[in-house]
Amino acid sequence: MFMSEFDSVLLNIGLNAKNAARKLGYIGTAAKNEALTEMANALILHEEEILQANSRDIVAAEKKGIKKSLVNRLRLSSEGIHQISEALLDVVHLADPVGEGEFWTRPNGLRMQKMRVPLGVVAMIYEARPNVTVDAAALCLKSGNAVILRGGSEAIESNKVLARVIAKAAESKGMPVGTIQLVEETSHEWVHQIIKMNQYIDVVIPRGGEGLIKTVVQNATVPVIETGTGICHAYVEKEADIKKAIPIVINSKTQKPGVCNALETLLVDQCIAESFLPLMGEELEKHNVEIRGCAETCRILPYAVPATEEDWATEYLDLIISVRVVKNVDEAMDHIYQYSTKHSETIITENYSIAQRFQREVDAAAVYVNASTRFTDGGRFGFGAEIGISTQKLHARGPMGLKELTTVKYLIYGDGHIVP
Amino acid sequence: MFMSEFDSVLLNIGLNAKNAARKLGYIGTAAKNEALTEMANALILHEEEILQANSRDIVAAEKKGIKKSLVNRLRLSSEGIHQISEALLDVVHLADPVGEGEFWTRPNGLRMQKMRVPLGVVAMIYEARPNVTVDAAALCLKSGNAVILRGGSEAIESNKVLARVIAKAAESKGMPVGTIQLVEETSHEWVHQIIKMNQYIDVVIPRGGEGLIKTVVQNATVPVIETGTGICHAYVEKEADIKKAIPIVINSKTQKPGVCNALETLLVDQCIAESFLPLMGEELEKHNVEIRGCAETCRILPYAVPATEEDWATEYLDLIISVRVVKNVDEAMDHIYQYSTKHSETIITENYSIAQRFQREVDAAAVYVNASTRFTDGGRFGFGAEIGISTQKLHARGPMGLKELTTVKYLIYGDGHIVP
Repeated sequence: MFMSEFDSVLLNIGLNAKNAARKLGYIGTAAKNEALTEMANALILHEEEILQANSRDIVAAEKKGIKKSLVNRLRLSSEGIHQISEALLDVVHLADPVGEGEFWTRPNGLRMQKMRVPLGVVAMIYEARPNVTVDAAALCLKSGNAVILRGGSEAIESNKVLARVIAKAAESKGMPVGTIQLVEETSHEWVHQIIKMNQYIDVVIPRGGEGLIKTVVQNATVPVIETGTGICHAYVEKEADIKKAIPIVINSKTQKPGVCNALETLLVDQCIAESFLPLMGEELEKHNVEIRGCAETCRILPYAVPATEEDWATEYLDLIISVRVVKNVDEAMDHIYQYSTKHSETIITENYSIAQRFQREVDAAAVYVNASTRFTDGGRFGFGAEIGISTQKLHARGPMGLKELTTVKYLIYGDGHIVP
Repeated sequence: MFMSEFDSVLLNIGLNAKNAARKLGYIGTAAKNEALTEMANALILHEEEILQANSRDIVAAEKKGIKKSLVNRLRLSSEGIHQISEALLDVVHLADPVGEGEFWTRPNGLRMQKMRVPLGVVAMIYEARPNVTVDAAALCLKSGNAVILRGGSEAIESNKVLARVIAKAAESKGMPVGTIQLVEETSHEWVHQIIKMNQYIDVVIPRGGEGLIKTVVQNATVPVIETGTGICHAYVEKEADIKKAIPIVINSKTQKPGVCNALETLLVDQCIAESFLPLMGEELEKHNVEIRGCAETCRILPYAVPATEEDWATEYLDLIISVRVVKNVDEAMDHIYQYSTKHSETIITENYSIAQRFQREVDAAAVYVNASTRFTDGGRFGFGAEIGISTQKLHARGPMGLKELTTVKYLIYGDGHIVP
């Protein structure tokens, strides 16, 4: 099954994780919270060491000539470490889903319990941001899962220290060895091995760019929860209230353009295009957003760049928006059906029936009326922290919190019951 | 992406299914029930045609020299067709999970609905039994999913007629074209294509032998719900009530040995082995069950066949049982941890704390105390019909009913909301 020299390292990590998971499944919430609190404290205690490791990553990244925006995502400050530590304490206050459930009794007297239990071993494959190392470990621990972390090469020095510090803190409070482990080797071959370790890993969660997610989805034999890419649309319907439409489009597009719930395409009803687009265009210009428009958009806004077919299928993650004038809600929904990644879609309208139709017929994790797509987020939904936003339909859809890191088992209480 | 001549057929099936799913998602329960009723009637009306097709399958199977037990699984009778039709009417009476959900309001006034919606397109890959064609189609339709059916070659003539009859009946009651489709080509290459059609299929559910399930799990890029193999254990603990233990073991092993929730391995506490095994062995003998025992078992029961390492990892699906004497509950749970497929496990004991430990620490879809493993079944759990028993942890675990054929979407009602 395994063939190369590094396999024994991975096998060992897998075995440790599995052994840890076997015990973690029934460690009580109070003990897990104590470990999380210790982890939060340990980060503050080791601030200096973490910052030194982080500056080694920054120096290496700058030497490699990595984009400035990416280098900034890597960078940790004293304040940043305190924020990560506080996020950890927030997890302490979240409800523990493990051990919850329903029960019922069958006519033959068999008593059935359907109880939430941890998934077991979660592998997180992610990219630059070192805070994911701590966030993911905290959510996995709180939900009773062992975690195997595999972060990107750019953050490896930071991740090594962060993972060591929190793993030690967790163990010092009685969590089993193997609860939190980092794969220190960052070559791509290792990812390909990890995602095939069905014997040891119950689920793989990739978090990062499209390339990473595709690689994992197409090559994994371990079940995957796909997170991510969002080509989100806003449809400004002909009965839209312009005073709502313009702020919603601006907020969805510009409040944080580099994230998956940011807006990428604006669809405008032809009946209002002539009056709405000049106002919208002016506002987008003010926010330095480049407009790539269909022919009709370019006619109305001569400064728009003509959109190509590729534009409709692109997640810009940047201050660029594609704009298309559509005949009606049907054409808008057809466009969304064709190009949507089923993440977040919004309609701006005052028409009750069209709003209802849009929500009913658009297939996406989150379908909004008169609100910004930027709300698709575990915190903003009221779930507390999230481990990612699922764009698949199985197991979890939309923001994934602690509950999505669990499964169920049935406990059945008999008294000599046999089937007739 | 696609390369061979049969691809256009599959692409067409995929497109039809996707188009059907787009409409099926919001067809009301009453209309779906009307279609299901019509399907049930149509089966009765076409009894003659179905039986003729089935006898062609039987003749072909006998010519090929297929095992008699397999031929019997293929065979349909007039009574069998009536049973399939009645099972269809049972689905009418099940609650429709689509459109159910919870809602809450965020502090900013944003109203959130979490609503159950269909998965979309379900592909069923299954083997001999022709009734699966109708059962799967009915459950998928009731839960608003389009279904692509791919049955085994042995039942192809029966399946063709069954699928045509029910698809026509569904369409005659307004269900969209493409709601129910059968892939008429039964070569294995087609399965390999189907399980990679991510553009068209939301989930693949394989049902059948270990070989089929492995092929699908290891090669699919479409998300899979793994069903199936059950190496189920019964642990007769030292404080077991023998009057419960013997019937439970016999029922679990012999009531229907060819199914996934049948017992395969009996673990006996060493403290009672000497007294219990002769009684148990006698009962097993009476039921024509071959015993494959560990050294200690063979010492106590000289007629037992010595078990090999392979026996512990074998799902016999036959009147064979492997028997091992263990030191205590820890050794029993270690054995289960090593060999279990996480389907169904049972302990027979009167000791409260050991029963609790077993249920807490054994990782399986169903963990019983003093009851037969044969209860793991959608009907016996009280869920109505089932589309399979999931042995994986993601999305669904244990018997899968209608709810497991759905996902959720969030509908969010704003009034110009933007994120701060």
